[in-house]
Parts: sequence; C-alpha cells; structure tokens
Amino acid sequence: MERGSPFQLECPLPLDEYPHVLLAHGGGGRLMHMLLERLFFPALGSSGDHDGALLEVGGVRLAFTTDAFVVSPWRFPGGDIGSLAVHGTVNDLAACGARPLALATAFILEEGFPVESVWEVARSAGEAATRVGVPVVTGDTKVVDRGKGDGIFVITTGVGVVPEGVDVAPARARPGDVIVINGFIADHGIAIMSVREGLAFETTLQSDSAPLHDLVAAVLEVARGQVHVMRDPTRGGVATALNEIARVAGVGIELDEASLPVRPEVQGACELLGLDPLYVANEGKMLFVIAPDVAEHVLEAMRGHPLGQDAAVIGRVVDEHPGRVVMRSRIGGRRVVDVLSGEQLPRIC
Amino acid sequence: MERGSPFQLECPLPLDEYPHVLLAHGGGGRLMHMLLERLFFPALGSSGDHDGALLEVGGVRLAFTTDAFVVSPWRFPGGDIGSLAVHGTVNDLAACGARPLALATAFILEEGFPVESVWEVARSAGEAATRVGVPVVTGDTKVVDRGKGDGIFVITTGVGVVPEGVDVAPARARPGDVIVINGFIADHGIAIMSVREGLAFETTLQSDSAPLHDLVAAVLEVARGQVHVMRDPTRGGVATALNEIARVAGVGIELDEASLPVRPEVQGACELLGLDPLYVANEGKMLFVIAPDVAEHVLEAMRGHPLGQDAAVIGRVVDEHPGRVVMRSRIGGRRVVDVLSGEQLPRIC
Repeated sequence: MERGSPFQLECPLPLDEYPHVLLAHGGGGRLMHMLLERLFFPALGSSGDHDGALLEVGGVRLAFTTDAFVVSPWRFPGGDIGSLAVHGTVNDLAACGARPLALATAFILEEGFPVESVWEVARSAGEAATRVGVPVVTGDTKVVDRGKGDGIFVITTGVGVVPEGVDVAPARARPGDVIVINGFIADHGIAIMSVREGLAFETTLQSDSAPLHDLVAAVLEVARGQVHVMRDPTRGGVATALNEIARVAGVGIELDEASLPVRPEVQGACELLGLDPLYVANEGKMLFVIAPDVAEHVLEAMRGHPLGQDAAVIGRVVDEHPGRVVMRSRIGGRRVVDVLSGEQLPRIC
Repeated sequence: MERGSPFQLECPLPLDEYPHVLLAHGGGGRLMHMLLERLFFPALGSSGDHDGALLEVGGVRLAFTTDAFVVSPWRFPGGDIGSLAVHGTVNDLAACGARPLALATAFILEEGFPVESVWEVARSAGEAATRVGVPVVTGDTKVVDRGKGDGIFVITTGVGVVPEGVDVAPARARPGDVIVINGFIADHGIAIMSVREGLAFETTLQSDSAPLHDLVAAVLEVARGQVHVMRDPTRGGVATALNEIARVAGVGIELDEASLPVRPEVQGACELLGLDPLYVANEGKMLFVIAPDVAEHVLEAMRGHPLGQDAAVIGRVVDEHPGRVVMRSRIGGRRVVDVLSGEQLPRIC
C-alpha cells in the first residue's frame, strides 16, 4: 500500500456480498445506485449528477451528458437503438434545461453482424439527429470478436447550451410544487418486453422513444424559472426518478394513482408480466416539478404540443415523509413507492 | 421507398462484397476507412474528422472527441483500459490543439465480471484524470448478459478548449514541413501482443500509454502557429496517420527509415510476429508536422519534457507523389508505405 497516496486504494463497496457484476447492477435500482455511489464516484473523483453535468465556458453554460445503449433487441416497435440513442441523449440534455448543440456517436460492432443492419442503425441515428436539428460532429467505431459483443452497442454523448434564466436541479424541488408528466408511462419497456417474450396483443405496443427538446423549450418558454426540476424517467421508471428527487431535495412526494396515465393495453401487459408500470422505462417522457401557480400554463403549453397531448398532473411535493415517495391509491389507501433492488427489465436501453 | 425523403435510403457501401462486419472493419485500415466514408458519414450526415471536432461557443473554440475502448486483455504491461481510455481521449483533444476541460465516461460491463476489477479500472481512470487535472463530470453504466460483452468496455468523451492562435488540421501540412515524433514507436501494440501471444522477452515490453496534453502545450508554447498538424498515431500506427495527412492535404510525405525510433526489443518482437512497427498502435506518441524553421526549438522543447526525451525528426512533407507516403530505406532504396486493408492487430485499443 502506498502511504499518502491521493487515491483511495480499497474499494468502498463491500466485495464479499456481490463479488461479480450482476445484470441488476445496470438496472437503475438500489444495486446500481450502490455501484455508482460506492465504486464509480469515489474511483473517478466524481460526485455529480450521473445524468448530465454543467460546464461554464466563455460565460456560456454547457450541459454535457453521455449514455451507452445496449438495448436488446436492437430493433423494436417504434424505434431502434440508433434513434433511441439520439433521443436519449437529447432528452438528457433537455432534462438539464439545455438545447442540443452537437452529438458524438461511438459504435461497438460484433464481428459477423450484418453490415446492412449497421447501415439501418446509423441511418436511423442520423435521421433522428436531423429531425432534432443537432449535428453528429464526431465519432468512433470499434469491432469486437464474435461472442464478445451483441451485434451493436451505440454510445452517444451530447453537448447543449443552457439558456439564461433556466436553473433546474433535483435539489430545487420544494413543498407545494406539482409534478407533471407529458403522457402515458411504461410504453417503452413494455414494447421491448412484448417483443422479447413473444407476447401478442390486439394492438402493437409501441415504444414512446421521442426527442423532447422542443416540448421542454415550450414549457420553459411559459414557465422558465418556475420549472424547478426536469427528469426523464428511463431505467427504473417514474418511481425511481421521483425517489431520486425526493432523496436529493429532502422532500416528500405524493403520487395520485388515479391520475397516472397508463394505457389499458400496457396495464394489461404489466399484469401478465408481473410488472408495475411505475418502474418501467420510458424514452419519450419528462417529469416536470414546477411551481403550482404556473401549472395551468404549463399543461396548456404541453397539450398544444404533439408530444404532450396526454400531459397530466400526477402528484405534488410535500413536507411530510422527506426522502420518500408515497402513492395515494384509487380507493384512498397509501403505500410507499420504494426503489427496487435491481430492476424489472434488463437491457431496456 | 419514400420519394423526396431528405435521407439516403440505399447504403452507399456495396453490401455484397462484405455482407458482415469483420474485425478488419475496426482496424484503422482501408476497410475501416470505407466503412466510415461510405456508411457512417452518409448515414449520420457527418463528414468531419473522425478523431475530433471543433465547436464555437461564446467566442471560445471547443474540441469534442469520443472513443470506445475494447482492448483485450483489459490489463497489460504499462496500463489498463481505464488509464488508456483517459489518455486516449486527452491525446485526441491534444491533437486538436485543445487543453482538456472535462471528461465523460461510460462503462459497459459483462455480467459475471469481478466487481474488484471494475474498481481497478475505474480507479485507474480516475487516477489518470487526476494526474492530467481534468475532471470526470458525468457518466453512464450498463450491464449486458454473460457472453454478450467482454468483461469491460470503456467509452470516454472529452471536451477541451483550443487556445487562441492555435490552428492545426491535417489539410495544413505543406511541402517543406518536417515531421517530428516524441519517441519510440510501436510499444503499445507490441506490449499487448506479447501478452496475448504469451511471448517472453528478456525485458518486459511496456505500453507507452501516456497523456500528451502537457508535451503538446510545451510545443505550442515555442511554435504556436508554426505547428500545422498534430496526430496521435494509434490504430494503424504511424503509417496510417501519415497516409491520412498526405491524402487530406494532397501532399507527399517522405520518411527516413534510419531516423525512426524503434526499440531493439520491439523490432525483435515485430520480426517474430511478422509485423511492421510502422503500422503498430501507439498510445503515448504524437506526430507533429511543423514549419522547418521552428524544428530546432520544438525538438529542444520536447527533449526537455519527460515524454519527449527520444524525440526525432522522422521525415518531411514534399511536393512529389501527392497523397503518398514513401520511405527512404537505410540502404537508399525507396518504397511506398501504403494503408493496409484491415489491420495487423485487432482490439489494440
């Protein structure tokens, strides 16, 4: 052991309990949180928000975010890994309040994967970026031997500009705020699972994968400084995202079950698969924590946008039970909505 | 077929010749170049330099670069995938003339990989970043099923600031310029190969993996606008990097075999393995194409730096044979140093 090393030598995560990486370590739940807080953050000397960081350059605030996409299967109803990667990164920037400025894409290809599928994914990413109006300015490509990858992984990194007057952060949630979402939850995760499990429904369930920069800009336009937190509820779903906000801000969150927008066919699939839609990943949804006096304006702005027509107030921030999310059920009962240990669905994004 | 779609529908890369991804598609040679030029660039609407891009924000020039690291084995003499990822990204920024500002790291872990090894890699990346003085500000972690990955992949993205007066680009190489490198070539690739092939040498060959931001700053300090091109010769080695410069700038490049710094043990390993050190990857080397009148000052500055003690002038830019690199051998012969089709060494970075 080097004495006086500036670097921590022992892993702060106890290695005897989970000596090997589990799928649940990537699931957005408690195990992943532990891996971040007790391994990656101390190792990397980083303690920031894992979803995106702010940099100050020449008097401009930049948002910076990276995401690795390993979704299986890579093509699914409503999208594919290429468009998903672009939308996911654009949405992470949007959650920081940033307008997208440029993207970088890295591809890890497995030997033997069809070149035509590489074209399909790359074109899908390119089209998604063009629709958003953000250029892909740089990238990288690596190939791994057969059996050492899974067809294609896409890693996107985004840089965006945060306009003046915008100041969003999980810690800014305060009692009295209301929680708004722009539409139906759990569509993405259930679309993936229905393909994986070979489930047939009367209608095809589609992923909600979509870029939310424009919807977010519309909301900021009417509410600007009154938007306290934005969060895209991807891995771990709405429940995990709200728990994170409650924990960081030290506030309670109360959800109203009756107001949660869930499609009947998604609810049905969840029951079949034993899943709770609150924990299922979304890829075209944003949670907004806003001051109550702008709620009407925000809802109006969202409903005037193609991606916000089913927007709803789903809960509020309270003084009680700080750090916890509590659901008020349809019949008036209350239950704690906790963070799961692993996740319900591996490789969903 | 959608008529009038703004997007190209047919893959411009002929799919019948190579219908499936080959390891050589990631090797830095001709096949990879084709994949970039005829698939990724048209699909992504990107035509820029694959190694890094410049963005203008608030009057500041930013460099932006991303790299996926899939080196096998992940631990090797002189480094590991964690420090390699940080050094590689810092060096890509340095090659743009940029000082590193912030890094993002994404990890793709395979189920079953030891958590202790994750700690070793993450700590190594964190230490490398600390030594460079660049913070890791954001990241992502994904886990894939056993057999769908290879232990650990690390994807790093960097943002850097290009100081005023610095203007480097491959197209700026001009006849009369001299080509300088900061030390011995091929160390990284041979260190990896000697582990993979189980070769035993009298001394352990070490990777040259190192961050070059500080050396580059020292060179720019003495030569600033007279540094025309910088390029880190990683995949594909010195030969491939120089071919790229010759092609883009439309100039010829003449190399002098006798002045190429190759360690005897690396030369020996290359002969044993049937490799040409000119094509073997480096991870701590930079090629500088500079005006001849600053060559002495640049060499002096480099030799005064720990990472430039073995700096040498290895060739020059000429009017003749535009687009080609020609080697003048020790005995006075001349041979064309072409781009290889695939690569000599898969998964070297």
